[in-house]
Amino acid sequence: MAVDIIISEVGPRDGLQNIKTAMPTQAKMAWIEAQFEAGTREIEVGSFVPPKLLPQMADTAEVVAFATTLTGLDVAALVPNLRGLESAVAAGVHKVSIPFSMSEAHSIRNVRKSHAEMLQEIRRCMAYLQTLPEARRPQFEVGLSTAFGCTIEGPVPEDRVIRMAVEVVAMGVDEVCLSDTTGYGNPAQLKRLAQGIWAACGAEKLTSVHLHNTRGQGLANALMAVEIGITTIDSSLGGIGGCPWAPGASGNIVTEDLTWMLESMGLATGIDLDRLLAVRKLVQQALPGEPMYGFLAEAGLPKLN
Amino acid sequence: MAVDIIISEVGPRDGLQNIKTAMPTQAKMAWIEAQFEAGTREIEVGSFVPPKLLPQMADTAEVVAFATTLTGLDVAALVPNLRGLESAVAAGVHKVSIPFSMSEAHSIRNVRKSHAEMLQEIRRCMAYLQTLPEARRPQFEVGLSTAFGCTIEGPVPEDRVIRMAVEVVAMGVDEVCLSDTTGYGNPAQLKRLAQGIWAACGAEKLTSVHLHNTRGQGLANALMAVEIGITTIDSSLGGIGGCPWAPGASGNIVTEDLTWMLESMGLATGIDLDRLLAVRKLVQQALPGEPMYGFLAEAGLPKLN
Repeated sequence: MAVDIIISEVGPRDGLQNIKTAMPTQAKMAWIEAQFEAGTREIEVGSFVPPKLLPQMADTAEVVAFATTLTGLDVAALVPNLRGLESAVAAGVHKVSIPFSMSEAHSIRNVRKSHAEMLQEIRRCMAYLQTLPEARRPQFEVGLSTAFGCTIEGPVPEDRVIRMAVEVVAMGVDEVCLSDTTGYGNPAQLKRLAQGIWAACGAEKLTSVHLHNTRGQGLANALMAVEIGITTIDSSLGGIGGCPWAPGASGNIVTEDLTWMLESMGLATGIDLDRLLAVRKLVQQALPGEPMYGFLAEAGLPKLN
Repeated sequence: MAVDIIISEVGPRDGLQNIKTAMPTQAKMAWIEAQFEAGTREIEVGSFVPPKLLPQMADTAEVVAFATTLTGLDVAALVPNLRGLESAVAAGVHKVSIPFSMSEAHSIRNVRKSHAEMLQEIRRCMAYLQTLPEARRPQFEVGLSTAFGCTIEGPVPEDRVIRMAVEVVAMGVDEVCLSDTTGYGNPAQLKRLAQGIWAACGAEKLTSVHLHNTRGQGLANALMAVEIGITTIDSSLGGIGGCPWAPGASGNIVTEDLTWMLESMGLATGIDLDRLLAVRKLVQQALPGEPMYGFLAEAGLPKLN
């Protein structure tokens, strides 16, 4: 089915990674399958990180093995480094994303790597990918995280984001993704950053954004993204993974509300909203006590006739 | 101070009208004064409706008398009919809005008037206004309510909304306002409706929108509005007046989050966000137990340096 906008579901990764409850592997698989059946065609199913750091993600290889049996689903995973990338390739992931924090202070705190060290790591990843036969080579994307600002550094200069995009694109990465990790972004900034990267790297090198709704700006930013020509938007079912320090301040934008915005605007996502809302219930049952966010699920779909 | 976008605070009317707690007159005045001091320059302070129907609004004339002492504040009020308009004029309101539901079923249920009867009422209002000396004549706006869809009728044809706008503009009303009473609207629809009205009535006849966040689309709709040239946006502090049938489904868009969106985009609103967040606390104290909405207040302003 032809879609106008790809909604990339990141709940099984970004959502589950940020909550206390560890979802059982079977429940993850049930979620992924149900959402695939609702029409979702790209899902980030987990992270290849050391199980000691994120025990919730310890079963990612198993989840990938299941997800890749769903014909037509693009199975994505996050990796922090070359080692994770090797695991992702071994598991058969279609698309790999490595976060590269535009705030060096955040990068050092998060993965203990300076910008120079991260660029070196990405270079190593590219060298490794080039040793693989084409059929086994996943799409490799660099997530420009904290691109809109950082809770440690404050504002992140836009020219730095563009310069880093240029550097990794020159290494041969397939794409970069503009990532508002901290929920600092606004629509005007998103437009400037995207157009800056397009001018410097080519439009085909940036087609996706990863937005958070921390300050309620998620859908406004998503609207600007689609208005200027972005074609893939990350979101999390039920906004799972809301910031633990502020219960109402959700993390990722909510898949249900994003889908409703796009579909009501006449932009095809391929997703059946009634079935998506049923997946939400399924996931809620698998995560008792965890808050879920979003407005559509509470208000319901509008009366149609 | 020159502003790019006027944020019209409707909390004292649309918010307080939709909650159980009746706010004491002194608390309303304290709210209005504090928000004026935070930089807000247009506030809808109440409704001129029979006190039996809405006892929370019984003190509107008194509140108007106070609000009009704040030099530079545009004091607005809602009226359902000519009788309310006469009271509004007697009280010295600067701007009056009469809601005209684009869904006839909703109009009949809400104010017991068909479309023909509402048009007749608006005609009577215009005739009355023309008897007033110019100095006493308030700006008179027709709110095209349920313009984006209706919980009773379902979809509302866009050509009907444009036709009704043409009819009331021909009567001489100063402006119409596109009003998403039900939270059904999407940004593409907002753009079509606004451009349709502009083409039929002239751009100066539609400069404002009234949006609800029932399905989480409020700020995305507001973004589209400012992108196409709308210059006044209604919102409610803390989103007060959320739908009672669904606690998370807020009513009006949240002033704090809207102000943050616009200011972070570089659009001047004249509003000091720190002071606005302090007003929120003041209002919360005056409405114990009433829920308040919005993300910015929970997450806080981003780190600036």
